[in-house]
Parts: sequence; structure tokens; C-alpha cells
Amino acid sequence: MRRFAVERVRRLFLRTVRTHASSAAVSSPSSSHSSSLFSPASAAAMSTASSTVVTVDSINPRVLKCEYAVRGEIVTIAQRLQEDLKANPGSHPFDEILYCNIGNPQSLGQVPLTFFREVLALCDHPFLLDKDETGHLFSADAISRAWKILDSIPGRATGAYSHSQGIKGLRESIAVGIALRDGYPCNADDIFLTDGASPAVHMMMQLLIGSEKDGILCPIPQYPLYSASIALHGGSLVPYYLDEATGWGLEIAELKKQLEDARSKGITVRALVVINPGNPTGQVLTEENQREIVEFCKRESLVLLADEVYQENVYVEDKKFNSFKKIARSIGYGDKDITLVSFQSVSKGYYGECGKRGGYMEITGFSADVREQIYKMASVNLCSNISGQILASLVMNPPKPEDESYDTFHAERHGILSSLARRAKMLEDAFNSLEGVSCNKAEGAMYLFPCLQLSKKAIEAAKAINAAPDAFYARRLLNATGIVFVPGSGFGQVPGTWHVRCTILPQEDKIPGVISRLKAFHEAFTQEFRD
Amino acid sequence: MRRFAVERVRRLFLRTVRTHASSAAVSSPSSSHSSSLFSPASAAAMSTASSTVVTVDSINPRVLKCEYAVRGEIVTIAQRLQEDLKANPGSHPFDEILYCNIGNPQSLGQVPLTFFREVLALCDHPFLLDKDETGHLFSADAISRAWKILDSIPGRATGAYSHSQGIKGLRESIAVGIALRDGYPCNADDIFLTDGASPAVHMMMQLLIGSEKDGILCPIPQYPLYSASIALHGGSLVPYYLDEATGWGLEIAELKKQLEDARSKGITVRALVVINPGNPTGQVLTEENQREIVEFCKRESLVLLADEVYQENVYVEDKKFNSFKKIARSIGYGDKDITLVSFQSVSKGYYGECGKRGGYMEITGFSADVREQIYKMASVNLCSNISGQILASLVMNPPKPEDESYDTFHAERHGILSSLARRAKMLEDAFNSLEGVSCNKAEGAMYLFPCLQLSKKAIEAAKAINAAPDAFYARRLLNATGIVFVPGSGFGQVPGTWHVRCTILPQEDKIPGVISRLKAFHEAFTQEFRD
Repeated sequence: MRRFAVERVRRLFLRTVRTHASSAAVSSPSSSHSSSLFSPASAAAMSTASSTVVTVDSINPRVLKCEYAVRGEIVTIAQRLQEDLKANPGSHPFDEILYCNIGNPQSLGQVPLTFFREVLALCDHPFLLDKDETGHLFSADAISRAWKILDSIPGRATGAYSHSQGIKGLRESIAVGIALRDGYPCNADDIFLTDGASPAVHMMMQLLIGSEKDGILCPIPQYPLYSASIALHGGSLVPYYLDEATGWGLEIAELKKQLEDARSKGITVRALVVINPGNPTGQVLTEENQREIVEFCKRESLVLLADEVYQENVYVEDKKFNSFKKIARSIGYGDKDITLVSFQSVSKGYYGECGKRGGYMEITGFSADVREQIYKMASVNLCSNISGQILASLVMNPPKPEDESYDTFHAERHGILSSLARRAKMLEDAFNSLEGVSCNKAEGAMYLFPCLQLSKKAIEAAKAINAAPDAFYARRLLNATGIVFVPGSGFGQVPGTWHVRCTILPQEDKIPGVISRLKAFHEAFTQEFRD
Repeated sequence: MRRFAVERVRRLFLRTVRTHASSAAVSSPSSSHSSSLFSPASAAAMSTASSTVVTVDSINPRVLKCEYAVRGEIVTIAQRLQEDLKANPGSHPFDEILYCNIGNPQSLGQVPLTFFREVLALCDHPFLLDKDETGHLFSADAISRAWKILDSIPGRATGAYSHSQGIKGLRESIAVGIALRDGYPCNADDIFLTDGASPAVHMMMQLLIGSEKDGILCPIPQYPLYSASIALHGGSLVPYYLDEATGWGLEIAELKKQLEDARSKGITVRALVVINPGNPTGQVLTEENQREIVEFCKRESLVLLADEVYQENVYVEDKKFNSFKKIARSIGYGDKDITLVSFQSVSKGYYGECGKRGGYMEITGFSADVREQIYKMASVNLCSNISGQILASLVMNPPKPEDESYDTFHAERHGILSSLARRAKMLEDAFNSLEGVSCNKAEGAMYLFPCLQLSKKAIEAAKAINAAPDAFYARRLLNATGIVFVPGSGFGQVPGTWHVRCTILPQEDKIPGVISRLKAFHEAFTQEFRD
């Protein structure tokens, strides 16, 4: 009976594989115009006709409107090239695709921190804690931390749904970490643990946006999560431009101008998004600038949505990360003065644990009845994943100098951050050495956002294939070198200017190769399209 | 310097604790009417006045409309009682709270399956795979499975964002599991891995609902995720009633009547939700009934949203789980005939790994361009957590008889499922032995949904405190016994009938105690409110 079942699944699998193979040869006319835009995975499913119960014309129009460049067209082309390279080695002038499109450090070889992974493994399989061998395999403080975490979970049940905001003991430990960082108290009840920062951002957008009359002030350029989430929730993105000439400066006069403009159009602006350190722009705000922003939000009755996921990623001596809560408290603003949400994630920093989907938001200045609504929204998804919750507590409370793990931890952390700083500088210098390219300093975060002066001829060539000029540049770069940059048009930019976003994440020994491929491509491109 | 920092955080922590302590004594007038409804956590934040930038009147009205009973008022009361019991032991006529409100097996003592946790620990900390001790600590097939999984992840990077649909190799292994279950092929490209089933349900609602003119047919009683998600996305819930008299039968005539009624009101009904095995009702659909449902969806051009998260939870000999895809294929319906979504989760079954937030949806019959939109929605959240992805692949491909783990796995699995069947029967019999209570068989899932005939006097007493009669009953039960049931009003029920939902999850040795407390309470309640 069992043998039969195994044989049966083998046959089914072969049928599945054959279905795929034949579908690859069939081009579905209905999909040809748009299949290039997103998932290559979907192509395989097109071999048979589909039901027409759901059509693009009948779905939620807000979904259609939403765009998400960092996983958009350029990535789909890259994935196809990768498959092609695998099937036909030597078929392209490069032998690997280098994904510089997304802040995903471990996908490019960054190694996770030992202490974090030790604790996660012990919490996943607490059986290990009672074994003699464990003392040889794990550091003493990882073992004691795992015990402490397990003891903070009712019934030590790491497989149970937690409180909708996350496990209380983990939130308390995060609150201690925040208090130590800021020098101001933090309340564990203000923490909502989430599956990365993205669901927290969606939750705030869902709370604040009731219709297209509700506006959210967002930087341009911005991380496309914001434009996507605002589009999905049916609100209005109110743009404010960062000033490239002053190192992506955030000017209060610009905020004020855009706010008034939006108000004159009948839009109620509900919140201001600030990304600090900046994504895709890499700037780190000064304390003075942050104070002005806090005062502006108070004056204009705006919720301050502070994307602080790059708080550990600062690479310059003269700048330092300050949370907006610290700034607000330092000028004497309490809960009654300012409504503030701070987003943090385990995906960035030196940890880069994107796949673990851990993060939190700290909310302050909300009334009790609005907090209940936020709690209810969190409850509808039950809770975030417990491993991510544990990791968020570790990230906010890493090993201390007296702990056995500390030396290893410190070396790993320092190794990653100092290498990121060197990589940022090397790439920045490289961009600035290219003809017609200028690039601001990457003070923080994981990106550079160089400005490209494209010739009329290049712009015409892009127009001829119905592409944005920077998308045209990025596509040509990809086809020539295997390097994936995201066109600036995916982030927003001053009309008539063109950029690309490039992560600083390729491993350090690969950076010289990236730079020489980039230089060679850029010179050829410039020659080809010189006016 | 470091000592100073440690001392500083200690002081901050004390300040935080003091702030909490004082706030506990202060009753915030603004919150008094509603603070009982949701989070007890929020109470601590009310000590200082809050900014009025965001008010309940200014937030998204769809959020206000959303309700989620399984984590609603009754749970908040239970949490308060629990705190009270801790602070003042002996202050109530029971010494523990028994949470029968939510399908959260491990929170009530269910132990996770060894094989699953071994593989998760090894994938979290692959360093272990190279160590001699590992052979003593882990089963051979857990080690080989971990290697296989790691090899399917590009760069073995378990901390990297995956493909937006989930890691390809894991989806392929899930597809094999589905094909073996159904006897029909499954395509890995049809699988979207998600953080539990809830985000998948939200994604489909977001896709299908553009306005309140878009309706979704939902069973009544239903799992409140559906009503909550439809409310959040601004659609219309079109109810169809399950027939309690025929064991919660799903009648096509009722579907048709409700569909026509909705259409006559100008609502475009987009989809039919079927939960099988049923939540909160516990029935398992017959093949014949499933065929009728599939044909109805084809005839009426409805997407079939099949909640199949309890597929492993069937407790009666004469019933068997059949996926809707298997049923559709068995009557010859392919992609062009029916648009079908099947939701699965690692939270239920015998595994009960709620906190891991793993799950998937299998989508078939969508056109290529609509699939691209679904892919884009998945991309906006980047990916689901990798541990949950791994667990979903394990759940759909557990150890086989030839594997070292199999005997242990089989014993653990059988132990849990057979105990659940016994618990379901004991509780069902107990409910049926109570005066004025009738309870259908729990054929599957994790719940009983007994009907309470409440006296006029009880209904009057409930009205006097502005409570639904079943909420009144549940609250009295909780205060008398510490047992948490969710009132039927949170799931929907035929007007004028009253129910409670009770999970079958308390550990087996506790069931007799639960039953005797329940009986004693019910007798006293019946006496007190006899007309």
C-alpha cells in the first residue's frame, strides 16, 4: 500500500514536471503584455486556459495601482538571466548575477551572528538544554539566555500564539534596550512585535487612511513600501523632496509648502514619514534637523512615522543615530505633545536577519481608545512569529562585555559594520569617478543613490522602447554585467533627474570587480549615447 | 563608562516600573468606556494625557467596524483574572484560567513533534551539522532533511529574504505532498508561502474587494477572521447559514438564496468561503456535498476560498478529509472551470505550531495577469518567515516509515490525534448531558459549538447589563470556573439562538475537571435563572 503511494507520487511528480516543460514552450497570448513585469514563477501556470472569474478589470483597483520597484521588472529580468546562465553557461558576458537591488545581506554571503543563532536553535529545540553535549556546542550565555527566554514564555511554549503584541517578557527586554539606547524610559506596553517592519507600516497606514482624502507626507525619493502601502489602503501620498544638493537634506520649508499645497486640495494630512538613516538616500539626520521635524509635527498635528530600521548602520564619524523619541523627550515633549511611531527590524543593522521576519513598532502619544483599535488590528493576525520575536529581543539586548560570547559577538559585529563602511566609501568614490555621475556620501543605511546625467540620445533611446531613462540604463547594465541596480523612478525623484539605487552589500572582495565592470559598462554606454 | 550605562538603565527601568505602578491607581476617564474591550496592556499607558492628533473619530472607519471575538472582551477579562490570581492566590473559586477560546494547542501543554523541532534547530544553526556530537543529539533523518533544505536555499542563507512566494525547493516539496494527498498533480508555482493562513486570507480579500459592492459568501457561524478581514477591506459579508439540525449541513439551496438576495441588492458576489473541517462547527463535509459546492461555484462564477487548515483533524471513522482541488479534479474540472484557493497552516493538525506562523495558499484557475498582481502583493511584504516556510514543507512531508524518526513521529502524531478524538467525544457528551444544551458531533477541527437554550430570565439579566445572552453566560462561567469559552455572537448564529465555542484542547487529564466545573456551574446558572 505504502509502496504504491510512493510510486504514485513519483508518477504524479513526473506529470507535473512534464506539464512545466511543455508550458515553457507555449506562449500564452493573454499574458504576453504583462508577464514580464512580475513573477517568472507564474509563467509555468499559463499552459492551460484559466477561468475568467477574476480578471484584472474586476480586482481591487488599489492593488493595480500599487508598485514595488525593488522586486519589480528589473529583478524578473535578472532571474531569467540567472536561469539562462545555469542552463547555458557562458551565454552571457558574466558568470553570475549580483543582486544589488535589495537590502538582503545574507543572500550575498553575510554570515549570521553566532550568538543569535545559538539562542534561536536552543529555543526551537529546548530538549538540547538538558544534554551534556550542549555545553560543548553552545556558549554559556546563549544557554542562559535561552533559559531566560523560555521562562518568560507561558508554559515555555515556543509553538503557541503569544499575546497579540508579542511575548510580554520579550517586550520588557526590548523596552530596557530602548531605554538604554535613548536615556529615556520605555514602556513594554508600547511595543508591538511584528513580522519585520513592513506589517507594522501597513498597520499604521490601515489605521490612518480612511479614503483618498487622507494624506501621508513621504520623502521623495522614498522606500517603495510607503507608496505601495498608501496605494493599497487608498490614501494619498503627499510628496516632499529631499534636497540632493545638500546631501539629501530635509528642509522644513519644503515640508510646509507641500503640506499647505495638499491641504489646499482638501487633503487631510495625517502623518509624516521620515526614514533615518535614509533609504534609498543614505543620509543621517542631524539632531538640530530632527528637533525641527518634531516641532513641525507637533505644530501641524501630524503623527510622526519614524522608519529607524537602519539605526545601527551609521558609517561616518561626525554623525550618530538619534531616535525621534529621544529627540522629542529631550526637548520636553511627552505623550500629550507628539504622537510617534518608531519602526525597527531584525533585517538590517549588522544582523541582517531578513528571513527571520522580526521587528517591532514602539507607539507613543496615542489615546487609550485608539490604542485599543491598534491592538485589535494586531489581534486579527494573532501574533508575529516567535523566532522573530526572540531575535528582536536579542538585537535590542546583545551580549555584554562580561558574557562569554562577547568577544566573538563584538568581532563579528565590528567586522560587518567596518566592512560595510569601507564598501560604502569604495562604491561612492567609484560612482563619483564616472563621467556625468554624482553621488552623495552614504552616511548610513545600506544604499547609494547616485544621480546620472543622461544624454538626450540615451533618453531618446529609452523612449523608443517605452522605458524610463534610468530603467533603460539599469537594464543595459544588467545585460552587460549581471549587476542589478533599481532605477530611481521606482523611488521617486525630481522630474527630469535620473538615479539608480545600489546596495553596498556585495562581499568586500567582490567590490573591486563590481567597480571595474561598472566602469567599463558606463564608459561604453557614455560613448554609445554621446550627444 | 559601561558600568555607568548599566546603572543608568537600571534607574530607567525603575522609573518605568514606578510609572506603571502609579498609572495602575489612576483611572483615565477618557478610556473608561472602552478600555475593557481589548488590551489590558494599554491600560498602563493611560497615566499621562495623550496627544489628540489621532482620535477614534478620525481613524479609518473600517478598522472600527472590524471585530475579532476570539481575542475580544472575554479574553481581556480572563487575563485580568489571571493577574489577580497571581497577585492574590485564593481570591477566586478556581486556581487557574483555562483558555478554551482559541485553537492554540501548545499553550495548553501539547508538545511539539520532535522531528520538526530537530530540523528547525539545525537550520537555524547549521554550524551544528559539522559537529560530532550532533549525531548523538539528532536523528539521522532530521540531519539529512536539514541538509536537503539548506541545499535548496541559495547560499544556504536561512536569514535571507526568499522569493516572494517562498523558497522554490520548499514549494516543490509541498507540491509533492499535495499531489500525494490528492492524487492529482500540484505545481510549485501555485504555492504562496505565508506567515500562517491569516495573511493569505487577507491577501485574497484585498485582491477581490474593491468596495462595499463586492461581496463574499461566508458561513454563519464562521471563524471571525473572515468577517474581520472583509470589514477591514471594506467589502460586504454575504452570510449563508449552516443548518444546525443536520449537523451544521451546508445546503446549496441556502447558498443560492443568499446569493440571489445579495445580487438583488446590487452586490457583486466574488467568492464563497467554505471552512472544512468546520470552525467553529466541527463538521466534515461529504464528498457529495463538496461536489455540489464546486459545481455551484463554477455555475455562479465564484472563486472558491477553501479554508482547509484542519485537514489533519478528522475524528470519526465514517468521514475523511478531501481537498476541494481533489474534488474539482475528480469531476474533471481544470483551471479553466474553477478558480480555487486552498489555505493551509502549520498551526493546526497534530502539529499545532501556531507560534511559528507558517502556512500557504495554493491558487489555481487564475489568469496570468491576475497571478502577477497576487505576486506583487506578496512582494510588498517581501516574504514569509523562513522557519515557518521550512515547517510548512515538513508538515506536508513528514517522516516516512523507512526513516529513523518514523516510529517516534508516528507515536507522537497518533498520541495527539487519538487524544483529541477522545477529548472531543468527552466534551460533546458532557454538553449533551446539560439541561437545555445540545451539541453536534465534533467530526473534525478543534471546537464544539453547543447550542444553549437560555431562559427569559437569563436573557433579561443579560440585557440589564447590556450584554448578549451568550456573552453573559460565558462571562458568568469564566467568573465561576476560570474556563474561557467564546460567545457564539462572535461567530454569528441564527438570530434568537445562543451558543458558545469551546476548544477541545485542554490536556486529557484535565477534561474530567473541566466537565465537573462546567456541570456544576451550568446547574447553578439554570437554577438561578429558571423562568
